Amino acid sequence: MPKPLALVTRMDAATEAVWKETLTEALPEETILAFHEMSENQRREAELAIVANPDPADVAELLNIQWIHSLWAGVERLVAELGPGVVPIVRLVDPELARVMAEAVLAWTFYLQRDMPAYRTAQEKAQWAPRDYRHPRDVTVGLLGLGELGKAAADRLKAAGFNVIGWSRSPKTLGMIETLSGESGFEHVLAASDILVCLMPLTEDTRGMLNSRRFARMKPGAAIINFARGPIVVDADLIAALDAGQLSHAVLDVFAEEPLPASSALWAHPSITVLPHISGPTDRFTAAGIVAANIRNWRQTGNLPKTVDIKAGY
Amino acid sequence: MPKPLALVTRMDAATEAVWKETLTEALPEETILAFHEMSENQRREAELAIVANPDPADVAELLNIQWIHSLWAGVERLVAELGPGVVPIVRLVDPELARVMAEAVLAWTFYLQRDMPAYRTAQEKAQWAPRDYRHPRDVTVGLLGLGELGKAAADRLKAAGFNVIGWSRSPKTLGMIETLSGESGFEHVLAASDILVCLMPLTEDTRGMLNSRRFARMKPGAAIINFARGPIVVDADLIAALDAGQLSHAVLDVFAEEPLPASSALWAHPSITVLPHISGPTDRFTAAGIVAANIRNWRQTGNLPKTVDIKAGY
Repeated sequence: MPKPLALVTRMDAATEAVWKETLTEALPEETILAFHEMSENQRREAELAIVANPDPADVAELLNIQWIHSLWAGVERLVAELGPGVVPIVRLVDPELARVMAEAVLAWTFYLQRDMPAYRTAQEKAQWAPRDYRHPRDVTVGLLGLGELGKAAADRLKAAGFNVIGWSRSPKTLGMIETLSGESGFEHVLAASDILVCLMPLTEDTRGMLNSRRFARMKPGAAIINFARGPIVVDADLIAALDAGQLSHAVLDVFAEEPLPASSALWAHPSITVLPHISGPTDRFTAAGIVAANIRNWRQTGNLPKTVDIKAGY
Repeated sequence: MPKPLALVTRMDAATEAVWKETLTEALPEETILAFHEMSENQRREAELAIVANPDPADVAELLNIQWIHSLWAGVERLVAELGPGVVPIVRLVDPELARVMAEAVLAWTFYLQRDMPAYRTAQEKAQWAPRDYRHPRDVTVGLLGLGELGKAAADRLKAAGFNVIGWSRSPKTLGMIETLSGESGFEHVLAASDILVCLMPLTEDTRGMLNSRRFARMKPGAAIINFARGPIVVDADLIAALDAGQLSHAVLDVFAEEPLPASSALWAHPSITVLPHISGPTDRFTAAGIVAANIRNWRQTGNLPKTVDIKAGY
């Protein structure tokens, strides 16, 4: 019988139990134990940790793990918290994520194009206030980041009739949309977009990239959607741009601290839609199948899937 | 020089002026005058009225009009108010309407599938409360009405991955979705739908059709979208079904009285989204072009486009 696998998360107990069950169904030949239910001996024995936003102190108790499989795609926090000496980390690469994230981009683009926030505000005041319809071809959506997520979002938005432009740091060509790159391309996308959608990874280059200087270059009344990582946007600058009317609305699904603390000024801002990191949810069943296949392959061949570049952070 | 055309609306002055300008640009050879700016003599001379929800008393002053062109597609109120002895009425048949309405159905279906109302409520309480993602294939959308609008909506929803079923009074076949008809088919659609979308015309058969008896047959927690006509839904029954938790949410864009009076209980209901009749807005430029072509053809040939069947009401 193989040694147990440790499931290490900061989920609430019920959510963690559901994940444990789904993973066990996908991997019936393994014994998967939640960290908090493992004996000291079992913790010492475990050869592998399956993690989702784990407490680094818990991972440190697993003295003999050979590698870590993250249940999430984004691992920059895990890498930062576990430090450079960590065992190899495998992140979740889930093709379903691009579909579900592109769907979210389309859904919240409609939310802005169809003026849902304004109608909600009018409803609160019992005001009948129809607004002019904007045809999607007259709404320019600027996508920041043209990886798998950006490409999938471009497809969906284009099919819905929006005018889509894309930006990436290094030049990329996508057949169906205009793409720009570099600093001058970034200025162009800022100036042209009615809705700016952030899908970039968090790196030292993107941290704080959307700040007051950038907001000032945007079309007056433009909106932003951040489905990437919280620290890419400077919150205080965003609030100032909204308060000044330079921007009309922001849809934020990601934050520097998650869950967003109840004390945050973002919650009550009338021009901010706060979402609890749900734009690109991991599908539990798809994820468990991918994790199971990776672990089975490792048991049989000793090989790991592509591991995270600890220096780059992704 | 032809006799003037009368523009008769109950729009506010600024909106009416914009319509007058757009129509005049599309028909530079005609003199278009707003009813309130016409002399008694001009009112007697006018051969044609272009109307949008006109005051019937105003229309009655236009003694020599030969026909009426409505700027709206829905004319059941116009027909009822002007009475059976009215001159021929031409309603707007705008192919763009089906596209823009189908887009609205998709946008507000995403609104419900992606739990936007629940996240808004959670935001008001500063609560971080992620909900399980529902894949579109697991969300059944029932379309009531399979005319041009229903067909266009079925296309968009299907392309977005939703499980779509359709209902019409008399049997209709659409290639891509399951269709049902008659009373037993209606029961099936009620029982199967997670989101029920109403796109039927208002007739004596559909008036009050969505009532407590029908809501009781629906899936517990289902939602409805009414983009057709207000009186199809019995408001008091809807509120009772929402309060009892039988239904989870209603998106209402149409009401028995519009604008919805500030005293209406619908405004403040936490499970109702009130929209100011914007799901299928008339595109002013498209509409003006269609009206212009019809009027020009009439000037040249004396023929009218297909007119409204006054008895059927559409």
